[in-house]
Amino acid sequence: MPLIATPEFMHFDAPLALQSGASMPAYRLAYETYGRLNAARDNAVLICHALNASHHVAGRYAGQADSEGWWSNMVGPGKPVDTHRFFVIGVNNPGSCFGSTGPGDINPATGQAWGADFPVLTVEDWVLAQARLLDALGIGQLAAVMGGSLGGMQALSWSLQFPGRVRHAVVIASAPNLTAENIAFNEVARRAIVTDPDFHGGHFYAHGVVPRRGLRIARMIGHITYLSDDVMNEKFGRQLRDAVAGHASGYRYSTQDIEFQIEGYLRHQGDKFSDYFDANTYLLITRALDYFDPAHAFGGNLTRAMARAVARFLLVSFTTDWRFSPARSREIVKALLDNRKAVSYAEIEAPHGHDAFLLDDARYLDIVRSYFRSIEVSA
Amino acid sequence: MPLIATPEFMHFDAPLALQSGASMPAYRLAYETYGRLNAARDNAVLICHALNASHHVAGRYAGQADSEGWWSNMVGPGKPVDTHRFFVIGVNNPGSCFGSTGPGDINPATGQAWGADFPVLTVEDWVLAQARLLDALGIGQLAAVMGGSLGGMQALSWSLQFPGRVRHAVVIASAPNLTAENIAFNEVARRAIVTDPDFHGGHFYAHGVVPRRGLRIARMIGHITYLSDDVMNEKFGRQLRDAVAGHASGYRYSTQDIEFQIEGYLRHQGDKFSDYFDANTYLLITRALDYFDPAHAFGGNLTRAMARAVARFLLVSFTTDWRFSPARSREIVKALLDNRKAVSYAEIEAPHGHDAFLLDDARYLDIVRSYFRSIEVSA
Repeated sequence: MPLIATPEFMHFDAPLALQSGASMPAYRLAYETYGRLNAARDNAVLICHALNASHHVAGRYAGQADSEGWWSNMVGPGKPVDTHRFFVIGVNNPGSCFGSTGPGDINPATGQAWGADFPVLTVEDWVLAQARLLDALGIGQLAAVMGGSLGGMQALSWSLQFPGRVRHAVVIASAPNLTAENIAFNEVARRAIVTDPDFHGGHFYAHGVVPRRGLRIARMIGHITYLSDDVMNEKFGRQLRDAVAGHASGYRYSTQDIEFQIEGYLRHQGDKFSDYFDANTYLLITRALDYFDPAHAFGGNLTRAMARAVARFLLVSFTTDWRFSPARSREIVKALLDNRKAVSYAEIEAPHGHDAFLLDDARYLDIVRSYFRSIEVSA
Repeated sequence: MPLIATPEFMHFDAPLALQSGASMPAYRLAYETYGRLNAARDNAVLICHALNASHHVAGRYAGQADSEGWWSNMVGPGKPVDTHRFFVIGVNNPGSCFGSTGPGDINPATGQAWGADFPVLTVEDWVLAQARLLDALGIGQLAAVMGGSLGGMQALSWSLQFPGRVRHAVVIASAPNLTAENIAFNEVARRAIVTDPDFHGGHFYAHGVVPRRGLRIARMIGHITYLSDDVMNEKFGRQLRDAVAGHASGYRYSTQDIEFQIEGYLRHQGDKFSDYFDANTYLLITRALDYFDPAHAFGGNLTRAMARAVARFLLVSFTTDWRFSPARSREIVKALLDNRKAVSYAEIEAPHGHDAFLLDDARYLDIVRSYFRSIEVSA
């Protein structure tokens, strides 16, 4: 029987004090749960999402065949994170555009959409909001918190912000902070959005437009960095698009038409993204990525930063991931070992680059499956 | 005594038949020469430029202290390409925006600027135009043709288009074609330019505007790919910009202000570039990069493609260059060896990424120096 998901919403009246010093007034979180919370309330698993995902982690919506959750291969009945054993929670972070309070919502101070005035959020702020959701659900301690990429940063931060509330932290394809190159790619994407004339200083809602050009460019840049050079060469190489391949002389000799398949693929990804993603959310989420750096308060010493963690850890990285390379995961592993923390680490030989954390790779899924089997929960 | 450079211009009345099937009507090439052509006319070296460089390879313009040529560390009196021995020619390719006929010039068919109607040019077309310049200068055979990056592609193409006119080909930080990832980065840059409302379908000259937003984004993307992850981390890392570093709480918590030094650096590079570079030229040059693929006509077999070369070769690559990686240079080396051609190859351990080919690295400059010393020319 397929897993049927139902989005739920929780309202919070108490403002959330943010790292920036600002505070977020009354807000709403969208979330979904799968499986059942056991009597001992010790089988909850929180899944944290990355840049363009949401609370819709697993299953599908009733009557919507095309609505598979973004981590359905990972979470569900009989899946590596088995909802027969675990009560799994997916939550949409504030600032997002998929149901939780975000820049498209009304700013109570102005009666207009927040737009660019939405408070700047950090990974730590998201974790705080998630913790409040758990409070409301009556969950004191998580069996595990888990995420990939930016979601892995949230899992890592949980282990530091609420050490007593996390028994296991599963951090996949992530990093202890962004490199200069990562920040650089984020900044180019942001500039593409902000300098799009349809951005209107972030208040484009009032103008009835969307900064599509900027969103397209941002997504195209993102896509390049999610894939490996190898998998791009394998999937696309220098193949001409079909129409062009049938052309007598091979090339069209045009700077604006699509000549190569990779161009068509990227344009399509950019178009799709600009149809559904909020430009202010893109700015907020990439900035949260830039800011995350738990070692910062310890003079850059990650070992000292990780000293307060209590959870057991599983880290997974992928060999061709150049956005969050295995070396970055190994920095976290080392910092944990320096502190004599329990950590398992798997470096998966996979051709798919950063995207691998979302894909079906038997070795990867089996490792997560084995790890979750080792997590003890009450009957 | 410093080398004083003087730009010269050569007009060609006969149209240039292009690979696309189109032809370029009467046109002008800007060029510079350094040193003296010897009586035997066998000491000429042609330098081919890459994306944003020009015919101004070496020396400086009289009275302009800030006008050093882009390869002044490589070419000049006593330099690796020693103008005491060699007669060096720098030429600006057609389609460029630095003196040769380009999209900003008047299209004789319309009386308006060419704009986006400028013919699409290939590496092979440029080589053909360069060969005509040599004809006009009375140079039958080059002692050497040399270039880095896209310039290296031109040097490679010279050895195939005019095998009898090239004794040595020096191909630095180059590749036998672009990978899908390379094309992808070019395409994002082009889309940023083309979708800038100030692009006006490539006819922005008539509107008195420049698609600056697009040019800025294009340059920022380019800059990221010219540098290595390592050198970015070393130069910028996660350093906050000075003003921010003095701020009490560290971060400004802004999605649009500059927080990290790398952001300021990239914005500055983008701004500078948009002041002087032509948007249509950017489209043309990146397309020429995409198209270059001498193995294409041989079913992708580079060994067969290189069979017709007669020149001796020096190839140089840089370990941290991920845009034109050493593996790509080794493909050329192998294809030459398969054909029993004379080839020397140096892989330089350098942290600077693709940019290394323009920088001062003693081992690199010494190898080029030694190679050019081995080139025999008449007294």
